[in-house]
Amino acid sequence: MKSKVRQERAVRTREAILQAAAEVFDEVGYSKASIRMIMERAQVTQGGMYFHFKSKQGIAEAVVASQQKFVQLPEGTDGLQRLVNITFHLAGELQTNARFRASVRLAVEQEEFGGRDATAYLEWAEQFHRQLLAARARNELRFGVDELEFATLLMSAYTGVQIFSNISTGRADLVERVASLWRYLLPALAQEDVINRLRISPPDSLPAAEKA
Amino acid sequence: MKSKVRQERAVRTREAILQAAAEVFDEVGYSKASIRMIMERAQVTQGGMYFHFKSKQGIAEAVVASQQKFVQLPEGTDGLQRLVNITFHLAGELQTNARFRASVRLAVEQEEFGGRDATAYLEWAEQFHRQLLAARARNELRFGVDELEFATLLMSAYTGVQIFSNISTGRADLVERVASLWRYLLPALAQEDVINRLRISPPDSLPAAEKA
Repeated sequence: MKSKVRQERAVRTREAILQAAAEVFDEVGYSKASIRMIMERAQVTQGGMYFHFKSKQGIAEAVVASQQKFVQLPEGTDGLQRLVNITFHLAGELQTNARFRASVRLAVEQEEFGGRDATAYLEWAEQFHRQLLAARARNELRFGVDELEFATLLMSAYTGVQIFSNISTGRADLVERVASLWRYLLPALAQEDVINRLRISPPDSLPAAEKA
Repeated sequence: MKSKVRQERAVRTREAILQAAAEVFDEVGYSKASIRMIMERAQVTQGGMYFHFKSKQGIAEAVVASQQKFVQLPEGTDGLQRLVNITFHLAGELQTNARFRASVRLAVEQEEFGGRDATAYLEWAEQFHRQLLAARARNELRFGVDELEFATLLMSAYTGVQIFSNISTGRADLVERVASLWRYLLPALAQEDVINRLRISPPDSLPAAEKA
């Protein structure tokens, strides 16, 4: 019983460290962040910190690896509309969710701290791939589209779109740029009648009637 | 006469610093690079260095701003084929040209050193835009394509494609991924007969007959 309590506390401590680290990395960037800053933000002792992490690099790697934990995806039936909805949802999260944003930024800049781990990228490609396989089953995709190839391309292109939106406008125009990405990818991807009935806009910008 | 000599020497010194800095940034990354390392590589004195640059950040910003100077674009008639050729040429440069690679990496990671300058990105979008305007004049584009919007999207998507290719394979598969990007963008961009006669491969992989 005692050991179970200790285990649960350890999980909570690790979680608190990752959340605090993401906030610190978001605010000051990797190189200016320190283990001490993260400890103070997480309100953990030096012992608690070193039980879980030995280095700033280790913390950063864990923040990158937890990327999917920092966001909750919108519900919906798997397929092309849900894939579109997910990309708009992620745009909103990048604009407002500091922890997710930090994790994404570290994934992009990981070479700077000696990392080269594609896992965070591949998990998004896998998520997109799942939606595309459902879209294929629903007969939404064009003949000849390779679902895994497209999932990987979408994840890569999306990465670049959010980076440029960040550098040029602090992500203020990200939703518009995601819509633009879809506008130019859909003709190769989807059947024409499917394109016509897709909503290429954030799920929460639906007209009131459709929301009900 | 004397002042002209001095001026030319100053230009050469600045050039030598930028070239050396790009190499050092490529090898050790921004945070591990030092002004001393760059001075030694460039074989310039402390005086020479401080005449041109006061800080590592200033050097990094100049390396990013010089991005287009680190590559020479392939010749050709402006239009869609040249645009495709440029993207494959840049893939080869990213694989083999350490200075260009460093400049691109710094542009992506610039937030880490307090920069937020979209100029390097916008210059590529402008280059792509020029090719698209030529393509429009040659009647290669589909009706409704916004040349500037597409140029910006292509530059953004390309950025993400090369970042993921770097993290997952050290850019070994970059040419293949650029081809994949074109495969899924062209149907929205170009007339069908134009797509059919485009070469979606590196210019130097042409069959011997076409090279002559």
